[in-house]
Amino acid sequence: MFRIGIYPGSFDPPTYGHLDILKRASKLFDKVVIAVVSNPNKHSLFSIDERVRLLKESCSEEVLKNVEIDSFKGLLVDYVKKKDGCAIIRGLRAVSDFEYEFQMAHMNKNLCKDIETIFISSDNRFTFISSQTIKEVIRLGGDITGLVPEIVKKELKIKLEEV
Amino acid sequence: MFRIGIYPGSFDPPTYGHLDILKRASKLFDKVVIAVVSNPNKHSLFSIDERVRLLKESCSEEVLKNVEIDSFKGLLVDYVKKKDGCAIIRGLRAVSDFEYEFQMAHMNKNLCKDIETIFISSDNRFTFISSQTIKEVIRLGGDITGLVPEIVKKELKIKLEEV
Amino acid sequence: MFRIGIYPGSFDPPTYGHLDILKRASKLFDKVVIAVVSNPNKHSLFSIDERVRLLKESCSEEVLKNVEIDSFKGLLVDYVKKKDGCAIIRGLRAVSDFEYEFQMAHMNKNLCKDIETIFISSDNRFTFISSQTIKEVIRLGGDITGLVPEIVKKELKIKLEEV
Amino acid sequence: MFRIGIYPGSFDPPTYGHLDILKRASKLFDKVVIAVVSNPNKHSLFSIDERVRLLKESCSEEVLKNVEIDSFKGLLVDYVKKKDGCAIIRGLRAVSDFEYEFQMAHMNKNLCKDIETIFISSDNRFTFISSQTIKEVIRLGGDITGLVPEIVKKELKIKLEEV
Amino acid sequence: MFRIGIYPGSFDPPTYGHLDILKRASKLFDKVVIAVVSNPNKHSLFSIDERVRLLKESCSEEVLKNVEIDSFKGLLVDYVKKKDGCAIIRGLRAVSDFEYEFQMAHMNKNLCKDIETIFISSDNRFTFISSQTIKEVIRLGGDITGLVPEIVKKELKIKLEEV
Amino acid sequence: MFRIGIYPGSFDPPTYGHLDILKRASKLFDKVVIAVVSNPNKHSLFSIDERVRLLKESCSEEVLKNVEIDSFKGLLVDYVKKKDGCAIIRGLRAVSDFEYEFQMAHMNKNLCKDIETIFISSDNRFTFISSQTIKEVIRLGGDITGLVPEIVKKELKIKLEEV
Repeated sequence: MFRIGIYPGSFDPPTYGHLDILKRASKLFDKVVIAVVSNPNKHSLFSIDERVRLLKESCSEEVLKNVEIDSFKGLLVDYVKKKDGCAIIRGLRAVSDFEYEFQMAHMNKNLCKDIETIFISSDNRFTFISSQTIKEVIRLGGDITGLVPEIVKKELKIKLEEV
Repeated sequence: MFRIGIYPGSFDPPTYGHLDILKRASKLFDKVVIAVVSNPNKHSLFSIDERVRLLKESCSEEVLKNVEIDSFKGLLVDYVKKKDGCAIIRGLRAVSDFEYEFQMAHMNKNLCKDIETIFISSDNRFTFISSQTIKEVIRLGGDITGLVPEIVKKELKIKLEEV
Repeated sequence: MFRIGIYPGSFDPPTYGHLDILKRASKLFDKVVIAVVSNPNKHSLFSIDERVRLLKESCSEEVLKNVEIDSFKGLLVDYVKKKDGCAIIRGLRAVSDFEYEFQMAHMNKNLCKDIETIFISSDNRFTFISSQTIKEVIRLGGDITGLVPEIVKKELKIKLEEV
Repeated sequence: MFRIGIYPGSFDPPTYGHLDILKRASKLFDKVVIAVVSNPNKHSLFSIDERVRLLKESCSEEVLKNVEIDSFKGLLVDYVKKKDGCAIIRGLRAVSDFEYEFQMAHMNKNLCKDIETIFISSDNRFTFISSQTIKEVIRLGGDITGLVPEIVKKELKIKLEEV
Repeated sequence: MFRIGIYPGSFDPPTYGHLDILKRASKLFDKVVIAVVSNPNKHSLFSIDERVRLLKESCSEEVLKNVEIDSFKGLLVDYVKKKDGCAIIRGLRAVSDFEYEFQMAHMNKNLCKDIETIFISSDNRFTFISSQTIKEVIRLGGDITGLVPEIVKKELKIKLEEV
Repeated sequence: MFRIGIYPGSFDPPTYGHLDILKRASKLFDKVVIAVVSNPNKHSLFSIDERVRLLKESCSEEVLKNVEIDSFKGLLVDYVKKKDGCAIIRGLRAVSDFEYEFQMAHMNKNLCKDIETIFISSDNRFTFISSQTIKEVIRLGGDITGLVPEIVKKELKIKLEEV
């Protein structure tokens, strides 16, 4: 049986925390689809296309062997069905994450009985990283080396100079 | 002694989770007043009048026997006193709810020593429902049957087509 | 309608935290029954009879007007039904309390659909008190004045000298 | 690639919560091994053999197609390696679960870099069930129909009459 | 060795909770610097200068002996280094606080290895107070006596009449 | 002013998590006293004397310059007063820690107004380590290199062979 896992998220920008989850997930499924969420109501720093490109440039060839990088609009479960996914993959960092994720998992279960949500914890080194704090730190002039891929760091700086 | 409980909230829109709490509360008090909060600073999908009407149309006659549906402006404890309430009723879903609710309960206690806050948990089936997620799901084309009353579902669709 | 709330617990020994919850609950129900749990598998410092007596001696006459102090064996929901109770009353202090209490509330709901569990938070001054810490502190020679009634403090000292 | 997930636990006794996790996991892996933990330091109601048998009798033939029921002693990661497993499967119910599970996941990661831990949430209906509460309720004469398989319910009653 | 602790925050407005933390911290360090964060992206009720002044007028002379009241822009760790601080001081109220604070502590640690973050809990009486709830309550006409210094209460009223 | 911090605990055995907290604390106080708790009611693997010795042998000379290693019986606040300590130092790992620690901090505050409790978080790498899990892992034959000092690892093995 060929199993596909879908790893949805904003990835605005991708961090080493995301890539860590991705690498772990790619060993558990025959294929993993990273699905960048297109949310017109929420302001983002990078466009959908930029985020897809940053993810592609951040993944090693080894990882990309069974990883597809995509984006979607609309309901997550509809996208998962379209992609023939059997599971939604979510990273977990903290208790508040956990609760929100649980609510969403139950809601998705309610919308589609056949799709599971599984939770993977990232490496201890990455539990304090979030896209939000990355953006705050770089905006204030802090150094984010080791928290995001070099390409993300470089483009974050360009992006913030534009603003 | 005739005891009145006040069940305040945004109810934008009412869900089966709210109605479950209401039904449970209506057995514990001689009268329960649902009090829709009028918060001019917070954007809402339905107007106060619409939410009051939706609640009325969503409650069974059995429940409405000792339930009053109302709205209020200003400080909750002032409204509770005006209504001769002895307790504020709050539904609980998750740990983060719990903490915010506890802070508000202590603040209300500080504002008025005679008013208790009691917490009731809803049925397991409804713990993942919130007005916020309901709105997100329907906006993305998902099916919310079984999560909100039919009338709410119908008016949500109309409302979102208008936008 | 005459409503009875049941406030179950170990009360080994009763603290001002328990009495605070009791006082608050006694205003919300026509009658409150404190039900000391008889658990033969769990070691307790005070016997059931001692705990019932300590509770009686700790309550003011004002509170005792609509409070009954009792003990029970067996399943809580069976006891609540026998006493014609409509609700189980639980005090809440912390997140870990909250989760255990929620699980028990759902289990009791599953065992008997007609009995609600309501949660009341105690005064901020009492949130750090538990029967367990009281026993630890007095065992080590600490002063527990203001945390338990005088009679409890006195009998705790006698009990610990015996051991 | 043939992927094996290991679902370890005490299962003393198995509940519908466990079976729900098992059924979900069995769709995500080519094979799932339920591994009953043999812990000589912890008192259990059912022996390892009894628990293995109860699990076997509780699983439908459909589920058993790619499920193996086994037991182990010693370190979980050693067992996982012996079984060629790529992931440890854990059910999640509550925040306190979550934290303990996270600590164990990181410890196992530290002991063996190649084994992931994934978390699956059970159905809302089962979140309040634990082996511990099941034993408490039946000991006190409560009805656990719908919470554990019939065979477990029957043998629990026999076991408790023996004690 | 002369040790300096930095107590950063929005203080919009200062509350008795903040002052309680400050008083406790001032006994643990040779000097404490309250550092009002200047965040141009976040709307505040009081200007930086007003918040600095309110803090000065709210502190007793006793406390001010080893307390400096200042403001800063940019990255917190850069400010701490500039001020020769050895520790960041944070008050803690609740679990959700705790998690966010922990993430920030690890991020700051990552940005500067030599700066510790220490957490101090405020008095039980102040755990339900936040600048946000203070503003909500006074906006709705509630009484905040005992929750903030008199000068803060007075200026809050003036500020809200202006709006 | 010469400030002394007291870092109490069981340290059965000491881990790199404990030593990390100690090193951080030793920079914040003029002197830190590690105080091994002597609890006759709680079974421990190492005796008090063994734990004191293990701590001494685990600390570098650099750290030991302003660290004293001691043990105590009785009430913590009495010991802190005897040692002229101004603060109790506690490490924090998880939400459940946080709550228990908060309750104890408030209880200690109640027993002695002049003693603060401060919380320090350990390095991300150590958040999953506890003395309890260390003992479990080594008992089951797992490798704890990098989690405890070499001397602790060596003596743990000897101790467990004796049992």
